[in-house]
Amino acid sequence: MIHASQAIPLNDEAIFDAMPMEEGGQFANHATPLIRNCWYVCARRDEVGRQPISRRLLDTDVVMYRTQSGQPVAMHNRCPHRAFPLVKGRVEGDRLVCGYHGMEFEPDGLCAHLPAVSHVPANACVQTYPIADRGPLTWIWMGDPNLADEALIPELPWLASPEWGSVTGGFHIKTDYVSMHENLIDQTHFPFLHPGTVGTPEYARASMSAATEGNQVMINRRLDNAPPPGIYGKPADIMHKNVDRTSEARFVSPAVHTAHAQIFDNYPEPSKPSVYGYYITHCFTPESNHSIHYWWFNSRDYRLDDTDIDDFMRDASTQAYYEDVEALEWIMDVVLTDKEAQQFELSFAPDKPGLMARRIMHRLAMSERG
Amino acid sequence: MIHASQAIPLNDEAIFDAMPMEEGGQFANHATPLIRNCWYVCARRDEVGRQPISRRLLDTDVVMYRTQSGQPVAMHNRCPHRAFPLVKGRVEGDRLVCGYHGMEFEPDGLCAHLPAVSHVPANACVQTYPIADRGPLTWIWMGDPNLADEALIPELPWLASPEWGSVTGGFHIKTDYVSMHENLIDQTHFPFLHPGTVGTPEYARASMSAATEGNQVMINRRLDNAPPPGIYGKPADIMHKNVDRTSEARFVSPAVHTAHAQIFDNYPEPSKPSVYGYYITHCFTPESNHSIHYWWFNSRDYRLDDTDIDDFMRDASTQAYYEDVEALEWIMDVVLTDKEAQQFELSFAPDKPGLMARRIMHRLAMSERG
Amino acid sequence: MIHASQAIPLNDEAIFDAMPMEEGGQFANHATPLIRNCWYVCARRDEVGRQPISRRLLDTDVVMYRTQSGQPVAMHNRCPHRAFPLVKGRVEGDRLVCGYHGMEFEPDGLCAHLPAVSHVPANACVQTYPIADRGPLTWIWMGDPNLADEALIPELPWLASPEWGSVTGGFHIKTDYVSMHENLIDQTHFPFLHPGTVGTPEYARASMSAATEGNQVMINRRLDNAPPPGIYGKPADIMHKNVDRTSEARFVSPAVHTAHAQIFDNYPEPSKPSVYGYYITHCFTPESNHSIHYWWFNSRDYRLDDTDIDDFMRDASTQAYYEDVEALEWIMDVVLTDKEAQQFELSFAPDKPGLMARRIMHRLAMSERG
Repeated sequence: MIHASQAIPLNDEAIFDAMPMEEGGQFANHATPLIRNCWYVCARRDEVGRQPISRRLLDTDVVMYRTQSGQPVAMHNRCPHRAFPLVKGRVEGDRLVCGYHGMEFEPDGLCAHLPAVSHVPANACVQTYPIADRGPLTWIWMGDPNLADEALIPELPWLASPEWGSVTGGFHIKTDYVSMHENLIDQTHFPFLHPGTVGTPEYARASMSAATEGNQVMINRRLDNAPPPGIYGKPADIMHKNVDRTSEARFVSPAVHTAHAQIFDNYPEPSKPSVYGYYITHCFTPESNHSIHYWWFNSRDYRLDDTDIDDFMRDASTQAYYEDVEALEWIMDVVLTDKEAQQFELSFAPDKPGLMARRIMHRLAMSERG
Repeated sequence: MIHASQAIPLNDEAIFDAMPMEEGGQFANHATPLIRNCWYVCARRDEVGRQPISRRLLDTDVVMYRTQSGQPVAMHNRCPHRAFPLVKGRVEGDRLVCGYHGMEFEPDGLCAHLPAVSHVPANACVQTYPIADRGPLTWIWMGDPNLADEALIPELPWLASPEWGSVTGGFHIKTDYVSMHENLIDQTHFPFLHPGTVGTPEYARASMSAATEGNQVMINRRLDNAPPPGIYGKPADIMHKNVDRTSEARFVSPAVHTAHAQIFDNYPEPSKPSVYGYYITHCFTPESNHSIHYWWFNSRDYRLDDTDIDDFMRDASTQAYYEDVEALEWIMDVVLTDKEAQQFELSFAPDKPGLMARRIMHRLAMSERG
Repeated sequence: MIHASQAIPLNDEAIFDAMPMEEGGQFANHATPLIRNCWYVCARRDEVGRQPISRRLLDTDVVMYRTQSGQPVAMHNRCPHRAFPLVKGRVEGDRLVCGYHGMEFEPDGLCAHLPAVSHVPANACVQTYPIADRGPLTWIWMGDPNLADEALIPELPWLASPEWGSVTGGFHIKTDYVSMHENLIDQTHFPFLHPGTVGTPEYARASMSAATEGNQVMINRRLDNAPPPGIYGKPADIMHKNVDRTSEARFVSPAVHTAHAQIFDNYPEPSKPSVYGYYITHCFTPESNHSIHYWWFNSRDYRLDDTDIDDFMRDASTQAYYEDVEALEWIMDVVLTDKEAQQFELSFAPDKPGLMARRIMHRLAMSERG
């Protein structure tokens, strides 16, 4: 999957250099306009039902509900008449009815009825947004609707496949999606921020390479014959062994980061697997430039019915991701409130994958604005 | 009272149209500069006493107290010396004494004494505002003092007359006075926002006309031979009958909206009235462009000593007006925080009275700045 | 210490006049840029230890700790790599280690080690600030480091001398350091704001003169043969006598105000002093233009081991200074939120010392900006 011509050796000490912010203008940061032409997760699929709910997405209030046949609908949460929040109304049949004057909107946004008048003009409508279910998640397109091709929704087959079992959780975080991506594709912080879960000392020395594929960035690491990290080794009951370990982390889109880890037990006990596979899925959607909605999944390919493993994976994942959440919120607070002049953002060789993703995000954001 | 030439038939379906915001610039909204040349309620009369109180009115902090003879006084709540809030001082005789350096102000705002110096210069004074009591309310003029004619204070005789009995209440609301006026003169939202109190289904079909009188706007409605709404029928004990009903609602000034309802019992029982009258008074004063102080009264002309009716009227009014409060606060939150581009404010025929009032408010606001 | 040529008679009633704000532009106020070329208190000396602490000073987040040899270190609380707050890291040896990627900073700010790379570039560093201990306090210089001469740290010998005993306390206040200085050098507010502690009626009539010495301003007052104020008379057990009293209050620097009071008992009882001396020290540091960190000390030269006197002095000082805190916070709130046009800041003869200090602060602030 990695093309040699693109691969960057990440421990080359000659690469690091101070990167002045003026040159760094080509990298997205918290102040870059949000990318709208992208499928983002708007809700867990089971959150969207016949009772309307609202959520702020990319600075816009959105109201969501399902029709009688189960199709999800997303509308601007603002009646075009007098700005009443439509989530305070009710669903009748397939229509969303405003709670102020009873204006009724079809799933396509057209106003079909206003009780106080006999005929409703043709231009009476509310903005709608393309929305679609995929597996346990519901996705929304907040950009140009002409570009909203459902084939662009990232494929996350392990979330729907019976061969994989997942635990899940989420956070509402005061950070920006750029910092979140940069944090997820960077694994050199593991020993410092996550010493108790994923940050084993040996892993810091694992080889690493990075590459791009279109608008995706991925890193690959490999570490042979070393103790597994607790989060993967304990549920597999192989903490007493040395194992081989591979890991791919991928900036999939502005909305999604995934990781795929495999633990190879070269001397498996009878009736036990020789490979343990994990997929980690991070979906997050800007609420604003400084806050995000975040849903994560940790999926495995063995002992799917073992609820003790479920509990362990849920607790260990929550702990590790909360360490990221705390760190990113501390950083956002510094960035937004500290007034000391800041001339440089220092970057080093291991920051290259994150900077590659930030360059892609910057290009996407700028190209939308023409 | 309605001149035929001004009356607008409100159910003419040909009138409604989308009204682009650029043309709509002639209608006041939450961002229009506040109208200052107007008598506004600053307090219930019994709130203003010998102990100074302060309240923010039209973005200005005002301190109020009474002289020994009972005259109300209103001053800027900011000592001109070092900006100490005068409400933290005390009243001595007729003077308000600053709590920081003991500067003493007469009711006309002149500084009469400063303990640390022997003579006070003639220009040492604090700004005062015209203020006057009327019935249960105290009124203030925050605009050009040369225009503060007390004859302009709206007449609300039912609040002081022994032939009327009132219940009262109030709210501090995060909305704007323009939306409040538009909500009060609009009765087509009754069945949706107030189904339990004033919103009977039959009333939705009542005839309606609107007119202007100088800077006032009023609507008239009539409905014959129908059940009365609970808020008027229950206290009169006529819920089992069909009655005739008339209603006038009036945009009196930027500070006041009134309504007058009459229920006609064409077949009264012996010793019972054939007409039940109600006056509803809504006084509200901008604290800022996005918050208001609100006092309401519900007055009736029968069984004035019946405290059970008082309790019923107070509870039912509080419930109905709180439904408006909630709705207007939701709308204000949408208007102030949602960042989605909003090209149109759609309006329909029944919105005409509100738009007429908003046009008057816009003209008044602009003429002050001319 | 006062040169006659500079002394201003403060009760000259001819001096007072309204001072329009445009002319008053030469006096610092809450909006004047903060003076950075000055030694400010950053912490009590015992607050700075091996566990890093952070504090916002002049709009900049600063992290502080001590080296193994006990030297205080102050750094910008923001890793130059990805803005992680360094206070969330840990001290190892003499270095501060970032908690995100393990970047290690020497006390001079240079990055000595980054685990993910073999060599760290020479320009990898974090900003440091000159810092020094003096007596019970630690001082910082947030301005041009080339001007950070430790000889400029104000001398407060009574805080370190065995001949003086002190009680101390502090507040975090929503006010500005200009208002704080003006309040401290002004004693005409004592009878109004502090009637229970320092504000005796006779003291209002005490003679007063003011003078400047370089960038310092001081006032001198004397009152003979009058009862002492409770805060000085009670601990000395001389409330039953008339005494002579002198007082000097001094604007020492933008960071410090001191006062020196002496009570003369002309007929002392055997074995009791004939003079009771007090030094009051007010150190405060802008957190921002609208908030300050404030440390105070009340020192005396008699019965240093008497803990009852300690308790009395601590309680009485806390009460008096809290009255100032409340008043200054009320004023700040008025100044920041009231929108009424304010044409004049009225000043009077007794305001001259405060205006002299504000003129110095304005000149210092402007000269830094060249």
